[in-house]
Amino acid sequence: MINWRIHETGFDSTRISNNGNKYLIGNGYLGIRGTLQEYEKEQYPAINLAGIYDQVGSAWREPLNAPNALYTLIEVNKKVYRLPEDTPEVHEISLDYRHGIFERSTTWKTPEGLILIQAERFASMNDKHLIGMRYTLQVEHGSKVRLVTGIDGEVWDINGPHYDLVEFTNRNEVLQAVATTHENKDRICVYEGLEADFTYEEQIREENRKYLRYLEFYAQPGISYHLIKWVGIYTSKDLEDYGEKAYQTVIRAKETGYEETRKKHMEEWEAKWNLSEVFIEGDDKAMEALNYSLYHLHSIAPRHTDHLSIAARGLSGQTYKGAVFWDTEMFMLDFFLMTEPEVAKTLLNYRIETLEGAKKKAKAYGYQGAFYAWESQEGGYDACSDYNVTDVFTGRQMRTYFKDKQIHISSAVVYGLMRYVEFTGDHQLLLEGGAEVILECAGFYYDLLVKKVNKDQYELHDVIGPDEYHERVNNNVYTNRMAKYTFDSAVYIMKLMEEAEDSGSKYHHLREQYDMETLRPKYQEASDKLYLVQPQEQTGVIEQFDGYTELEDVSIEEVHSRLLHEKEYWGGAYGVATHTKIIKQADVVTMLNLFSKDYDKDILLKNWQYYEPRTEHGSSLSACMYAMLACKCGMPELAYPFFMKSALSDITQKGKEWAGLIYIGGTHPASSGGAYMTAIEGFAGIHIIDGTLKAAPALPPGWESMRFKLVFKGERYQVTVTREDAELHKIES
Amino acid sequence: MINWRIHETGFDSTRISNNGNKYLIGNGYLGIRGTLQEYEKEQYPAINLAGIYDQVGSAWREPLNAPNALYTLIEVNKKVYRLPEDTPEVHEISLDYRHGIFERSTTWKTPEGLILIQAERFASMNDKHLIGMRYTLQVEHGSKVRLVTGIDGEVWDINGPHYDLVEFTNRNEVLQAVATTHENKDRICVYEGLEADFTYEEQIREENRKYLRYLEFYAQPGISYHLIKWVGIYTSKDLEDYGEKAYQTVIRAKETGYEETRKKHMEEWEAKWNLSEVFIEGDDKAMEALNYSLYHLHSIAPRHTDHLSIAARGLSGQTYKGAVFWDTEMFMLDFFLMTEPEVAKTLLNYRIETLEGAKKKAKAYGYQGAFYAWESQEGGYDACSDYNVTDVFTGRQMRTYFKDKQIHISSAVVYGLMRYVEFTGDHQLLLEGGAEVILECAGFYYDLLVKKVNKDQYELHDVIGPDEYHERVNNNVYTNRMAKYTFDSAVYIMKLMEEAEDSGSKYHHLREQYDMETLRPKYQEASDKLYLVQPQEQTGVIEQFDGYTELEDVSIEEVHSRLLHEKEYWGGAYGVATHTKIIKQADVVTMLNLFSKDYDKDILLKNWQYYEPRTEHGSSLSACMYAMLACKCGMPELAYPFFMKSALSDITQKGKEWAGLIYIGGTHPASSGGAYMTAIEGFAGIHIIDGTLKAAPALPPGWESMRFKLVFKGERYQVTVTREDAELHKIES
Repeated sequence: MINWRIHETGFDSTRISNNGNKYLIGNGYLGIRGTLQEYEKEQYPAINLAGIYDQVGSAWREPLNAPNALYTLIEVNKKVYRLPEDTPEVHEISLDYRHGIFERSTTWKTPEGLILIQAERFASMNDKHLIGMRYTLQVEHGSKVRLVTGIDGEVWDINGPHYDLVEFTNRNEVLQAVATTHENKDRICVYEGLEADFTYEEQIREENRKYLRYLEFYAQPGISYHLIKWVGIYTSKDLEDYGEKAYQTVIRAKETGYEETRKKHMEEWEAKWNLSEVFIEGDDKAMEALNYSLYHLHSIAPRHTDHLSIAARGLSGQTYKGAVFWDTEMFMLDFFLMTEPEVAKTLLNYRIETLEGAKKKAKAYGYQGAFYAWESQEGGYDACSDYNVTDVFTGRQMRTYFKDKQIHISSAVVYGLMRYVEFTGDHQLLLEGGAEVILECAGFYYDLLVKKVNKDQYELHDVIGPDEYHERVNNNVYTNRMAKYTFDSAVYIMKLMEEAEDSGSKYHHLREQYDMETLRPKYQEASDKLYLVQPQEQTGVIEQFDGYTELEDVSIEEVHSRLLHEKEYWGGAYGVATHTKIIKQADVVTMLNLFSKDYDKDILLKNWQYYEPRTEHGSSLSACMYAMLACKCGMPELAYPFFMKSALSDITQKGKEWAGLIYIGGTHPASSGGAYMTAIEGFAGIHIIDGTLKAAPALPPGWESMRFKLVFKGERYQVTVTREDAELHKIES
Repeated sequence: MINWRIHETGFDSTRISNNGNKYLIGNGYLGIRGTLQEYEKEQYPAINLAGIYDQVGSAWREPLNAPNALYTLIEVNKKVYRLPEDTPEVHEISLDYRHGIFERSTTWKTPEGLILIQAERFASMNDKHLIGMRYTLQVEHGSKVRLVTGIDGEVWDINGPHYDLVEFTNRNEVLQAVATTHENKDRICVYEGLEADFTYEEQIREENRKYLRYLEFYAQPGISYHLIKWVGIYTSKDLEDYGEKAYQTVIRAKETGYEETRKKHMEEWEAKWNLSEVFIEGDDKAMEALNYSLYHLHSIAPRHTDHLSIAARGLSGQTYKGAVFWDTEMFMLDFFLMTEPEVAKTLLNYRIETLEGAKKKAKAYGYQGAFYAWESQEGGYDACSDYNVTDVFTGRQMRTYFKDKQIHISSAVVYGLMRYVEFTGDHQLLLEGGAEVILECAGFYYDLLVKKVNKDQYELHDVIGPDEYHERVNNNVYTNRMAKYTFDSAVYIMKLMEEAEDSGSKYHHLREQYDMETLRPKYQEASDKLYLVQPQEQTGVIEQFDGYTELEDVSIEEVHSRLLHEKEYWGGAYGVATHTKIIKQADVVTMLNLFSKDYDKDILLKNWQYYEPRTEHGSSLSACMYAMLACKCGMPELAYPFFMKSALSDITQKGKEWAGLIYIGGTHPASSGGAYMTAIEGFAGIHIIDGTLKAAPALPPGWESMRFKLVFKGERYQVTVTREDAELHKIES
């Protein structure tokens, strides 16, 4: 049996920010940072909302944090007790990551005796617009207590404030905050209802953008006083009667009661685990780390809608602008495909829905087709700036090329769609817009193809691959391979369209829109002629881009020793890594992972061995790719530390918190997804051959067996993998 | 009558470095900086040698300064008198730039009375290996005098010391220094002979890398004591018996005598002026400035050999590595073509001789054909580093792309060759290697051509044009136009080759070497399809490169105000100019100058007006291009200040002395050549139509007439231009 609870005892103020991420709870609609009830914006509390953004001035557009209706503070005998100011006698926070319940327990010592507060909260998995919290107080000596609780409208933001106005009203003892955003005048309703098992005198006051209840009572020694808070949240983007809905959510919860509501929430979580829990016999630590990773993926899965994606930092706050990156398709998608394909569909629908944005972006750069946003927000708007890094020496913004040169983003969308089709066998998504996305992405790459007049091959110049330390290179092998994949997919789609002439009006519509007779041979030729550098004869190494071989070959330690400032950027035009072979993250290795079937095992191995010591793993997307490829090379023992690094990234929180002078902390769902992929596709070796699910186990030392469920083409399977064998059993779904 | 003498009275130690350039004398084999006899290396004296280089360690390879055999110092009554230490009573330096004679005159006041020294020197234009110097001493009161004179082997270098060894010997009273270089063990012989019109006691001593005569005598008041020094210089690269030659040079000069030798030198200069002097009636200042510019070009013209070019800073020292840039062909060549075509041939022979180096460079980058050195040294070795600028904030070297991306250099060589053919009518140079150079340059550009698969045009990507502030751009219009010119030239050459089937073995040889049947249509197609952006419909402006239009449109003042450090680099990836429309130097305007016939005057004018306010003129190559185009637009009054800036650049010495933290001071022969082109081709409007020389005068305000001689197709012309009229008369040559 593994421990489904992580916890931390004692109070360390330097961990406030990290713990906000590590102890995050959420339900896909909202995420609540693992912060304490009495925290104000200096301690980064946040109820982070999915898919709704605001921009102030020229600062980055970012997602919204809702007014904090969990805010609660105590005063005993006219003295306030709060963290981080008042050092506690005992303090513990914990997260039940099987059920998404966060708890805190704090004891202060006073001259009159101890004060104990305990609180737990959950973001209901049953009703995504509901948060429940139970707050308990106990004193050692009879004391006059004042509990201050309500809604804190002074929200922590990175580039805020986002609310021009926060209006407070009281409707039948439900405190209502309606916040209006700056840019689009969206409205965020956060309503709070209260229950208590004791009597008190109440005053409700609005002060400093807070709407607070002051509850006064005399606390008897040794008695537990319980307070239940219900928070209902809706926005004007959800539906028309968002205000009424938020109110009804609170009322309904009150009627249902805390225990029952909490139970339904937990049952919902149990249902998720029933589909997704991975059992590992022989390595509890790995099993805990892996399922903790899955917890994070479950917490941010957008199950309240059928078209939304996941931000790179999930719902842990506003870093990375709450934007959707290639992380979703390339690192998180597999988990949902294999456990809840309807979530995968929701993620992909987001890309279908934002096709217009991608076409607009392509057009703005003078290209045809669909160029997806590097950092995608509402409608596919690219939140990525031309200046993403601050020069630590001059304080100036440095021109970066992530937005305009990281063209592989469009191929990630294609990859996600094709993988969905492959795993679900469901072509409906193609009919509902997926096919058009693929054709537009192919059109985009086709328009980017260049040919040396002197040479009969097609090339892609001036790009950035996954390794962002080397900007504006030619023929990055990952990018070229993915473009080829896109052309192949487009040709496949067109073949489908031809074959299924009468299958649906959508294809019909597409046939009118696209000149298939011209396009199919063009894209076929593009795929055939697109230059893919071959492994070097002597070494088997695949050159990451034209000229990589000539770069300085130094160790990471040497490059590190050249830093003049700990936060200086390694890449860009003059970074310490730029003119060396040191790369930020898996690049060739990512390509080899995706297309391992095209290469001899020997080549996979040689490239793993060549690139790994040259990889800084400066991105949380890196380790899992090395882990998976190591498995494919039959080296699970080498894969293991990379797997654990991925699975533990949000527990150890050793990821980079800074890029230049920009804070980038938060959870790492791509790393979590990577851990899942490594376990299932690496160690258990799950793969598809000729449309059939297969396993090719390569368990790491100490692992006796693995057990998990999978969905494949609408059928659910129970998979059991041992060191020698693998069994896949169809089960009732 | 203009004043052929520039001078400066009083002593200002801050001008030592600048005056070294401004008062330079030279004869193409060597240049002698305008420094004083007693100066040691701290004051940058130099006898700079043409075409011989040395490299120490990983520092830049640079040309050599010879041991200083002009070194002379006086001691009166046991006290040394020298500058800059001893403040003089009176001091003057002057340069007779009609005859290349530098003079100094210095008076010190002592308790016993005044001491006066005078000295003049010349680098013989008659015998390029000879320097003559006359040194005169007078004292007001009878004094014991010690004159210290000989050879200073402690040479000033930027990246030295270059001599592993300096050996001194005395052969029949000729002091001989033989210095051996570090890298190639070349030997530099500097021999010194002495004459005096008084008796003295002599001791010869070798000390601290100096080989010195100590001459002691009692000087009578009011008597002038004269010393004549002869310096003979040969190197082991000149011929086999270089030592004997240097010795004989000294002996011969002694035999001939000072007056006679000086007379021959001056006659040689008069002969040069007879061919090249430009008379301007109505503007003495302009006439002086222009002829001073021509003086500099004469002083550095390599007349001692038939294959050598001119360094970007002439013979004024070691800055710019003594390397040959596009400056020679694009800015200096016309002067020699029009006055001494044999010098032009010598310059172009250097490019023919270094074709192998250019092919080697192309190959090293994976290209076919000839990629000439951006900074060409012996054998066409590219002295340009990948790191040319130091980051003032970090002290790190910044990766620059001058060497690898400034591909327009090869077209400059082609342009020079074709211009030679056009002006001289002499095809011999083509037969002697010129044709091969042109074909190889065309091969180079052909190999660089790219085509968007989606578009039927050829493009050149990832280049730097003349404006170095914008690196790695696509379709720089100057570069594309010059590549097209190269293809056209290659097609022309191949036509010649076909037509002149029997004219020479060289063409025969070329026909075997190159598959003309394939190449001619290929290069013709390349010329036809090469993309040349057209003037924008509304504005007539020609976009400098793809995307220039989208850059920030700010004033130079605004960009300047953004500097955080006065010496920081404006270009590179993050420079203050990089993401703005501010350019370093004429780029589109240079192209329009060369191809003005292809455009309406209106377009020329609109582009002049658009780009001029956006040009920093951060290069001395910029002003003359604006001056010439202004003339072609019929605006000589607007051209005038740019012309004067070019002509005066080495007098006012306002050019940049620093690029980042690198010293780049010296003379500006390209600017001198640009002044000449502006006068002759701009104001006088000399041009060729259908193989005939024409003038189209556009004289600036105040100019009544211009008078000068020209050579065209082997015939010499006297040209007289007035405000209304122009006459070209053939004269006896």
